[in-house]
Amino acid sequence: MKLPGQEEFEHSSAHENVLAEELDSGLGPGPSLGGPSDTDNGESGVSKDPLLFIQLNELLGWPQALEWRETGRWMLFEEKLEVDAGRWSAPHVPTLALPSLQNLRSLLAEGIVLLDCQAQSLLELVEQVISGESLSPELRGQLQALLLQRPQHHIQTTGISSCRGPNAFRNVSFDEDTPMKLQNPLKQKLPPGAEAAAVLAGELGFLAQPLGAFVRLRNPVVLEPLTEVILPSRFFCLLLGPPTLGRSYHEMGRAAAVLLSDPQFQWSVRRANNLHDLLAALDAFLQEVTTLPPGRWDRTARIPPPKCLPSQHKRSLSELQEVTGLSRGSAAQARDRHHHGQHAPSPELQRTGRLFGGLVQDVRRKACWYPSDFLDALHPQCFSAVLYIYLATVTNAITFGGLLGDATEGAQGVLESFLGTAVAGAAFCLMAGQPLTILSSTGPVLVFERLLFSFSRDHSLDYLPFRLWVGIWVATFCLVLVATEASLLVRYFTRFTEEGFCALISLIFIYDAVGKMLNLIRAYPIQRPGSPAQGCFCQFPGPGGNASEWTSTKHKDTDVLSVVSLVNASLLSPPECIRQGGYPRGPSCHTVPDIAFFSLLLFFTSFLCAMALKHVKNSRLFPSVVRKVFSDFSSVLAILLGCGLDAFLGLATPKLLVPTEFKPTLPGRGWLVSPFGANPWWLSVAAALPALLLSILIFMDQQITAVILNRAEYRLQKGAGFHLDLFCVAVLMLLTSALGLPWEQRLTGLVVFILTGVSIFLAPVLKFIPMPVLYGIFLYMGVAALSSIQFMKRVQLLLMPTKHQPDMLLLRHVPLSRVHLFTAIQLACLGLLWIIKSTPAAIIFPLMLLGLVGVRKALEWVFSPLELLWLDELMPEEEKNIPESGLEPEHLFSRAGNEDSELMYQPKTPEINISVN
Amino acid sequence: MKLPGQEEFEHSSAHENVLAEELDSGLGPGPSLGGPSDTDNGESGVSKDPLLFIQLNELLGWPQALEWRETGRWMLFEEKLEVDAGRWSAPHVPTLALPSLQNLRSLLAEGIVLLDCQAQSLLELVEQVISGESLSPELRGQLQALLLQRPQHHIQTTGISSCRGPNAFRNVSFDEDTPMKLQNPLKQKLPPGAEAAAVLAGELGFLAQPLGAFVRLRNPVVLEPLTEVILPSRFFCLLLGPPTLGRSYHEMGRAAAVLLSDPQFQWSVRRANNLHDLLAALDAFLQEVTTLPPGRWDRTARIPPPKCLPSQHKRSLSELQEVTGLSRGSAAQARDRHHHGQHAPSPELQRTGRLFGGLVQDVRRKACWYPSDFLDALHPQCFSAVLYIYLATVTNAITFGGLLGDATEGAQGVLESFLGTAVAGAAFCLMAGQPLTILSSTGPVLVFERLLFSFSRDHSLDYLPFRLWVGIWVATFCLVLVATEASLLVRYFTRFTEEGFCALISLIFIYDAVGKMLNLIRAYPIQRPGSPAQGCFCQFPGPGGNASEWTSTKHKDTDVLSVVSLVNASLLSPPECIRQGGYPRGPSCHTVPDIAFFSLLLFFTSFLCAMALKHVKNSRLFPSVVRKVFSDFSSVLAILLGCGLDAFLGLATPKLLVPTEFKPTLPGRGWLVSPFGANPWWLSVAAALPALLLSILIFMDQQITAVILNRAEYRLQKGAGFHLDLFCVAVLMLLTSALGLPWEQRLTGLVVFILTGVSIFLAPVLKFIPMPVLYGIFLYMGVAALSSIQFMKRVQLLLMPTKHQPDMLLLRHVPLSRVHLFTAIQLACLGLLWIIKSTPAAIIFPLMLLGLVGVRKALEWVFSPLELLWLDELMPEEEKNIPESGLEPEHLFSRAGNEDSELMYQPKTPEINISVN
Repeated sequence: MKLPGQEEFEHSSAHENVLAEELDSGLGPGPSLGGPSDTDNGESGVSKDPLLFIQLNELLGWPQALEWRETGRWMLFEEKLEVDAGRWSAPHVPTLALPSLQNLRSLLAEGIVLLDCQAQSLLELVEQVISGESLSPELRGQLQALLLQRPQHHIQTTGISSCRGPNAFRNVSFDEDTPMKLQNPLKQKLPPGAEAAAVLAGELGFLAQPLGAFVRLRNPVVLEPLTEVILPSRFFCLLLGPPTLGRSYHEMGRAAAVLLSDPQFQWSVRRANNLHDLLAALDAFLQEVTTLPPGRWDRTARIPPPKCLPSQHKRSLSELQEVTGLSRGSAAQARDRHHHGQHAPSPELQRTGRLFGGLVQDVRRKACWYPSDFLDALHPQCFSAVLYIYLATVTNAITFGGLLGDATEGAQGVLESFLGTAVAGAAFCLMAGQPLTILSSTGPVLVFERLLFSFSRDHSLDYLPFRLWVGIWVATFCLVLVATEASLLVRYFTRFTEEGFCALISLIFIYDAVGKMLNLIRAYPIQRPGSPAQGCFCQFPGPGGNASEWTSTKHKDTDVLSVVSLVNASLLSPPECIRQGGYPRGPSCHTVPDIAFFSLLLFFTSFLCAMALKHVKNSRLFPSVVRKVFSDFSSVLAILLGCGLDAFLGLATPKLLVPTEFKPTLPGRGWLVSPFGANPWWLSVAAALPALLLSILIFMDQQITAVILNRAEYRLQKGAGFHLDLFCVAVLMLLTSALGLPWEQRLTGLVVFILTGVSIFLAPVLKFIPMPVLYGIFLYMGVAALSSIQFMKRVQLLLMPTKHQPDMLLLRHVPLSRVHLFTAIQLACLGLLWIIKSTPAAIIFPLMLLGLVGVRKALEWVFSPLELLWLDELMPEEEKNIPESGLEPEHLFSRAGNEDSELMYQPKTPEINISVN
Repeated sequence: MKLPGQEEFEHSSAHENVLAEELDSGLGPGPSLGGPSDTDNGESGVSKDPLLFIQLNELLGWPQALEWRETGRWMLFEEKLEVDAGRWSAPHVPTLALPSLQNLRSLLAEGIVLLDCQAQSLLELVEQVISGESLSPELRGQLQALLLQRPQHHIQTTGISSCRGPNAFRNVSFDEDTPMKLQNPLKQKLPPGAEAAAVLAGELGFLAQPLGAFVRLRNPVVLEPLTEVILPSRFFCLLLGPPTLGRSYHEMGRAAAVLLSDPQFQWSVRRANNLHDLLAALDAFLQEVTTLPPGRWDRTARIPPPKCLPSQHKRSLSELQEVTGLSRGSAAQARDRHHHGQHAPSPELQRTGRLFGGLVQDVRRKACWYPSDFLDALHPQCFSAVLYIYLATVTNAITFGGLLGDATEGAQGVLESFLGTAVAGAAFCLMAGQPLTILSSTGPVLVFERLLFSFSRDHSLDYLPFRLWVGIWVATFCLVLVATEASLLVRYFTRFTEEGFCALISLIFIYDAVGKMLNLIRAYPIQRPGSPAQGCFCQFPGPGGNASEWTSTKHKDTDVLSVVSLVNASLLSPPECIRQGGYPRGPSCHTVPDIAFFSLLLFFTSFLCAMALKHVKNSRLFPSVVRKVFSDFSSVLAILLGCGLDAFLGLATPKLLVPTEFKPTLPGRGWLVSPFGANPWWLSVAAALPALLLSILIFMDQQITAVILNRAEYRLQKGAGFHLDLFCVAVLMLLTSALGLPWEQRLTGLVVFILTGVSIFLAPVLKFIPMPVLYGIFLYMGVAALSSIQFMKRVQLLLMPTKHQPDMLLLRHVPLSRVHLFTAIQLACLGLLWIIKSTPAAIIFPLMLLGLVGVRKALEWVFSPLELLWLDELMPEEEKNIPESGLEPEHLFSRAGNEDSELMYQPKTPEINISVN
């Protein structure tokens, strides 16, 4: 299963995301960089060695005022000190000149290499290093004093340091040590057990010979003033020499630091036994560097940290061989991709072969997580999720439930919608850092219910009892599906089906939001200059007490005085007129001016505001916490803004009307639906037919949602519960049918029941929400859901000139015409679904949804398995069709750092995926 | 002088721009890549050698079906063949593994190097290459046949190739040659004289030894089937060998191609005399490659072409030396930057020392360009410019002129505004490809005129004669300024002043647009439920003929019948009521419902639409031509949309009212203003005081605009005319004052007079434009102008967390706190200007604008010259304060490809800069 945006190598937002993400995992201020997340970053293949913080101290000021200054630091990426600006650069990919690496190599080859040095302090270390050099005692003393000199560190204190002058360097002295250590935000971000490496480089005029030393300490020791952060140092590298043209000790120092920051080199050098091993590690590094031609790349350009680091596992293997030719076909790559994907059947989708075997396993798997489901729901992130789902519920209640409520014969009013619609999803926010995947339900099922209602009305059926039987049948079918482990069929729901389904639901949302808005405008017509005469006139009944009579039969005895007062009173506003006992008459009495356009304004404002706030996340302004709040609560804020605008102007816009009394909306019915009502008995059997359709719909909706939710990218820890979920749906179906509440199919958590109470408690507040605002949010949900699927990206490709197309992986592997053909087929399917939904045959549309699976199957005749793998994913029986290409053992032929490492370019943290289906 | 966005190293839009631009200059479909633009791309420092098209043909299918296939091509950047997808990748920076370069080196060192080969055909060439090898005759024949085999080229035909299957390779045979050549869009894009280089690489099992050959042909020959484009080949490189682990001939072939695509290597190898020279060139290349550490960069990630290529000039120099340390201070870099900038006085700004000397020189310089000014104005790009300025004029006429017209005592109505306001700027679109710099004027001068008008009203002066004298004085002062070459003072208008001025004008635009809109809403009040009683009632006069009498004195003989008809008639709409001889009475008779909100909708729609269309340029959708049209005509399209909406609903929104009669708006005045009118004689002398203020304003407005226009980045070819422009202003000032037309100060071209006629011709059409739409466009112009200045970027920095700040050059060199301080001072100045503009002292605001120059001068006490250089630019006498750092000769110490090549990161084609001042 692939993430919708998996292959997007997008420059704009994705890039920004990485930037923000990697900056956080860099050295800049930001959240703590923990050990585990670091090992996830591709280092895990190599070792569990401690994290290394590398600092470059440069010797400056020769010959007058020698001083050491920290000019660079490395952890994952390089940060340079902008000397003039007095700030650290953003973390970036370090770039080196080849000669500096070669010079470093020769300097180390001639220099002192102490592995497993036993020094306990900087003094001891320096003495050991210098003792190896043939220097005069005087020079030795000078050198020693110099090496022990305290370097200048540029410490970036927390908070905005706007009151500092241009010279923000601080001399970290021993005495200031403790406060400094507390102040340095870096220290807090380093995981426990981190080690330091100090590289000292510079030009020293009094040296006759270059002095190179590489020291690995047996036991890491805090070399006190050397590093900005008080960490035990494991490595010490000294690169000094007389100023010579063509030898920049600064660049050599950077080269040494970059080498040490390379996980592979670090791994080797931690285990090196002698100089030879050290140089071998350096040579291995050189073999693998990426080179950019000087005429096409400027070395000063800073490359922001890439989306994803190269796999170290692959690098270790690749040391066995050099890069091979183009010989390795894309079939093997595709297979890799296949294996990288999670298409290999997960344990949740293994057939047990026993009746209800899947359900039993689900219960077993889930039971231990049950308490944590409640604890996890307390996470602050869940709050915004709950609010979002709550709003989705409200809008759902209005758009679908309200529609049924309008037709007062229908089953449900707004109250029932509130009671019945679930606020699920909070339980999905299972762990911190997990993406906020929110799935608001009820869309398709309510569409079906609407169809069922008009069907029963057309055939003069007693709707609620009929509906009860449909519910009973659906519950039965669902139980059968659970018993037979039908959820395993989920593997046939490839992205093709998912996207068709999701696009249809999104379109329904958009269509309904716009439609509702147009209805509202029709209800509050705009007065055009050419439209019928305006004017409203307050008419009082004559003494006879009959107003109509008064105008038709002319009472001769009418007092002129009363006529005059009548004329004056006729200017009263309609409510005032009614209060004084009159009747408002005239074409404009019942039209409220300004409402239509103000509603439109509210509609667009809430839609655009929600869209804009959602994108605040990718902005550079404001701290990330603020942006996150804006983004997570975008809908809520948009609604608040709409309500505020509405309250400010105080216009009589239509508001959300929630009944405050707790009783069924349809007058005269109890809470329990009678099993037969006015229907003939055989209808309870005939209900099995619509129930079959509804079962298909519920099964698809439920399972597709579950598949999306359980994608590997979301790193769920608690395992999926396909069978359990379906079982819950079956039980709830029975319950809601009996009570005449809307059907709701996804109720994994118990949170729904708690929040239903809140829902009713909130009702008095909700009456301040103007409907156009909710329609706007509704539109936003539809648009957001639609734009999140890869299908839409491919639709955009249809309009995009070839040269502007993004570097999507699928475009590297599938001819554009084939991609377009696939997209066109999807578009055609969607169009067909929409047409069916709009015709009298609409009630069979669940069958057509199932038909998507068939279409996808038929696509095997049009596309090759490889193409389908890139465009979609494979159905179970297609998997064996991917040629193995006879490469054995496979990993030996994986091209080192070549094509197939593209597979690593799957975003680690998927974007927030709001899928409103 | 720096471009507003000069230092932005922005990831989003700037990056996209490069992409689009470089793609065009790459091999993808797009505009022709001419020779001159190529040499601009940094190659000019090396040579005027022909452009080289390099193609890599790989030998595939060993051992069964050997065939050559083109898998890569290079011109500026690399394009890879996506074999599966059957398409060329987007051009990207080539990345190489170091071993492939080393292997290539050793293969060439052992192989055959033929420099100045005399072969006349591929056959001759192949024979010469093979003859050097010790092969059995049989193998020799086999090899020769193989090398002469026709390779498979992937030809991308023009147009969308959506009907091709997955196998889009075509066998280019001799017979198909001519049509192929015509079809291949690449051929059309190569400049005349381009040469080809063919690299043939692959694994060949029957070879015992690797076979490497590098051939330079003395006279380039078309080696017929080798290259996809029929070009004479200069280089031929053959890299074949037995399949060996660790030797990828594919990667070696790529390395050879990348080498040949490097301008420096190409230059050397064109002049190489022997193998030694060739290897030296390769070694020089190796010395300069940029290396990326394998653990931090994945080689398969494709780096899009950079914003700007490295300077080849610097590379040639850097060969003399290796990179040096950090020793070179930022002073030298800053000086470089200084020299790179155009602050060195341009010839236009050299003092002649003679009276009117500058004017004479301007006339001389400009005279030869005079005819071309008219020809250039015919360029299609000018059309959108003219339309834009025309719209700016219309909105100006309404917002400022209209305002004066509202106060009917004022000098000018809309007609005068139309007549008077200039449509300049078309003459600025002097050459194709030049950015569309449009400077719509009148803002500040009209603000001043407004102030002058209220002043004369407050003191009961006869406005027009007073204004005439002000105009006469301004003309005199301007002539004095021209005579004394005061335009040379322009160098004191640094970006600080420019930005303050521009921000003020933008704010005035925004403020006025919003204010006008609020006035409109006040004129069409919204009916709230709580507002005074609604209702409109049509009242007919009683038989006495006096309506008011009718209600106050009660006529006993009133027929009830007439009362009843009165009641019925009271429902008539106000216009109908008036037509039938009645009077509409009641609070809602004069309120037109829905207009306020509909106007707001139109206002926001036109604003957002213009903004959105402007950004279509950066979208990936649609061909660039379409996007360009959308972007250039954004305002026009937005207005059309607004008019369409308005026409569709047919509401009585206030429209743009243009008089159709050609007469002065103020009744009773002739076209010529009387010199004294009702004013005392001494007022003509006193008018010198406001004239002085206005002269300062005009001088600053005129000169700042000219400075912005004449920036080096715009590559104007015709030279500046500071003095000439000011002279024109003086003459026009006199003319407009005498005729009572609005002052208009920037009239370089004659186009204005032609377009004024069009303006009146268009008047009947203009009446369909709703005012809110124009206000929306007006708001858009203000916002667009405001967001284009660097000042706003720095204001954003105030809100941006350090780690999200873009990699701006100034942030690399100036501490953040100092940047913030500078921004804060600018903000304070702007606030002060705004306050003065809003108080009774407003008339002195031109003086305060001049005060900006003083504030900038005072900043020298707060900031160091270096900081000012990065934050702003230097005033003339500051230039000598930049320390020279005693580096001599300077270029020897320029760090090769290090810090100061950042200077190259100035955008070559500045973005469209719409500066509405």
